[in-house]
Amino acid sequence: MLKIRPAVASDAATLRSLILGLAEYEKLTHLVKITEEDLLRDGFGPAPRFRCLIAEWDGQPVGYALFFYNYSTFLGHAGIYLEDLFVWPELRGRGIGKALLLKVAKIAVDEGCTRYEWQVLDWNQPSIDFYESMGASLSKQWIPVRAEGEVLAEMARKSRD
Amino acid sequence: MLKIRPAVASDAATLRSLILGLAEYEKLTHLVKITEEDLLRDGFGPAPRFRCLIAEWDGQPVGYALFFYNYSTFLGHAGIYLEDLFVWPELRGRGIGKALLLKVAKIAVDEGCTRYEWQVLDWNQPSIDFYESMGASLSKQWIPVRAEGEVLAEMARKSRD
Repeated sequence: MLKIRPAVASDAATLRSLILGLAEYEKLTHLVKITEEDLLRDGFGPAPRFRCLIAEWDGQPVGYALFFYNYSTFLGHAGIYLEDLFVWPELRGRGIGKALLLKVAKIAVDEGCTRYEWQVLDWNQPSIDFYESMGASLSKQWIPVRAEGEVLAEMARKSRD
Repeated sequence: MLKIRPAVASDAATLRSLILGLAEYEKLTHLVKITEEDLLRDGFGPAPRFRCLIAEWDGQPVGYALFFYNYSTFLGHAGIYLEDLFVWPELRGRGIGKALLLKVAKIAVDEGCTRYEWQVLDWNQPSIDFYESMGASLSKQWIPVRAEGEVLAEMARKSRD
């Protein structure tokens, strides 16, 4: 029996283990540094940096969707960016991930957002097929770019003021 | 003579023309719907959806950088996402775009952000070379996905509640 509800502060430990589960699936566990304290501060304090839904199956948390606003200067509207979507592998095939994805779409529409975006790993064919079955478009042209760590620090130092 | 300053409400008309300039460069002019009213509401009201820097050359606005927070659940920190970076073509080659890019990097570092991200079009080799010269990484694996318009509306309708 599936229930989707907003995450609350007492979900921080659960949420961290779900994030670790996602990282494991993406083969990126070595990159995970987030702590429960980070989650409490950034998700459940006075100025939240993200919003999160928890999926429960028979009362147990089994997946999550984590998202925040972005902005389109072409549309002139805020959109929703879905940072994470994850369901424990042993609970897949029950429509839990789909229910999370669609629930965030409903939140986007209810809040007047005209665009809903996320990213997928190019080797993750089941997810690519799933997203395309909904009618979502995979970009062939846009390449994500990132600066972090010492690269970012050096860019900041080179800034004129 | 270059000066970079935060955009203010009275820049809305200027900012819209710069956004149209960016869209023209990206061959996407047909997608631009943003109005001055959208910019005033979303950038300069009580709950801004974005922040913006204006570059002036000899007192005239010639470029802009528009950005907002995103969030990394692996790092456990907010980052900065640079949505737009643009300088009028006839003013290029003077380091204006680089100064805008670096200034936003400095804002990221000053605010404790550990990551700075944006996207580039795969045919835009001058920009790709420029970003790589700074040490930024282009993703080979992550594909941007998008749902909007009727696709998004249909996803929202299919949500269970």
